[in-house]
Amino acid sequence: MNNHFSFVGGKQGTWRVKDIRNISGSLLEPVERVNVVNHRVTELPSDSAWVLRSFTSNIRYAKRDELNTLQAIQPGLNRAEAVCAVLIPIKKSAQWWEMAQDERRAIFEEESHHTATGLEYLPGVARRLLHCRDLGEPFDFLTWFEFAPEYTHAFDELLLRMRASKEWQYVEREVEIHLNRQ
Amino acid sequence: MNNHFSFVGGKQGTWRVKDIRNISGSLLEPVERVNVVNHRVTELPSDSAWVLRSFTSNIRYAKRDELNTLQAIQPGLNRAEAVCAVLIPIKKSAQWWEMAQDERRAIFEEESHHTATGLEYLPGVARRLLHCRDLGEPFDFLTWFEFAPEYTHAFDELLLRMRASKEWQYVEREVEIHLNRQ
Repeated sequence: MNNHFSFVGGKQGTWRVKDIRNISGSLLEPVERVNVVNHRVTELPSDSAWVLRSFTSNIRYAKRDELNTLQAIQPGLNRAEAVCAVLIPIKKSAQWWEMAQDERRAIFEEESHHTATGLEYLPGVARRLLHCRDLGEPFDFLTWFEFAPEYTHAFDELLLRMRASKEWQYVEREVEIHLNRQ
Repeated sequence: MNNHFSFVGGKQGTWRVKDIRNISGSLLEPVERVNVVNHRVTELPSDSAWVLRSFTSNIRYAKRDELNTLQAIQPGLNRAEAVCAVLIPIKKSAQWWEMAQDERRAIFEEESHHTATGLEYLPGVARRLLHCRDLGEPFDFLTWFEFAPEYTHAFDELLLRMRASKEWQYVEREVEIHLNRQ
């Protein structure tokens, strides 16, 4: 299976853009739709403003017990009722990336409870983590969230909690792209 | 700086192939030279038999104290006396990649002493670790070693020690490409 995913911002695709909120750092240009494709798009299609390239990868921080809990509860994507999606590209600082593995893990989980907090919103809010820093892209990660409309408030709360964490002090660019499947 | 490196096996490049030893798994075709370029090669150049694509990335296992020791002692590449190089592509098993971070770390360092063993051969044997699994490549990692001819025996010993480790039980394909700068 191809582990590469590209998000093409333009006029095509099943996901209609409801709102693009530039939270920090450089702005991402507004578009009408986002086309999500399961391969690496090498050239920007005509009628498109941007493309974000990424890949899924192995687990980077979770320990076995955390992974077991996650795998037992996390739903797949494309549930019929999950018509809301939010794509959140973030870029972390050079200081984050210069840290050793144990330093990043301590901030990620022991101090910021990243996995533990996300767990509280499962199975309502499904997520897929995508990596892009290694591709030389403008962002380091894209996180794709999918949920039914009744989980919108819970999702907003999850974002507030993540942004209040120590980990987020290392986030220097962040955008929220709110989408509806239609 | 571009973090992508491609190794093109063919008839060009400053590194002449002395020997290709297929250690385990599918064979890699013999070539005369390897051309090392600091970008992603998308199409196989004519006159070439293969291309291995990869990127450098952040630290995945080392803790702060290990990283401090490494950074204090490790030399750069391209030292005038380091006319020998060995490129070692490896692929690890699905079982390895399904493990959680703490399980892989325990095998990598506490049981196999990967970083600690490599340290014993510094600064004589310089190395650069390159990642390729996330690119959908046939190998997961390429390690590039560079040393002066008098370190050849030490380097052979390092390989024997790594291959005797528990970590290497998860290696299912491995090739040694011995090179000379000329």
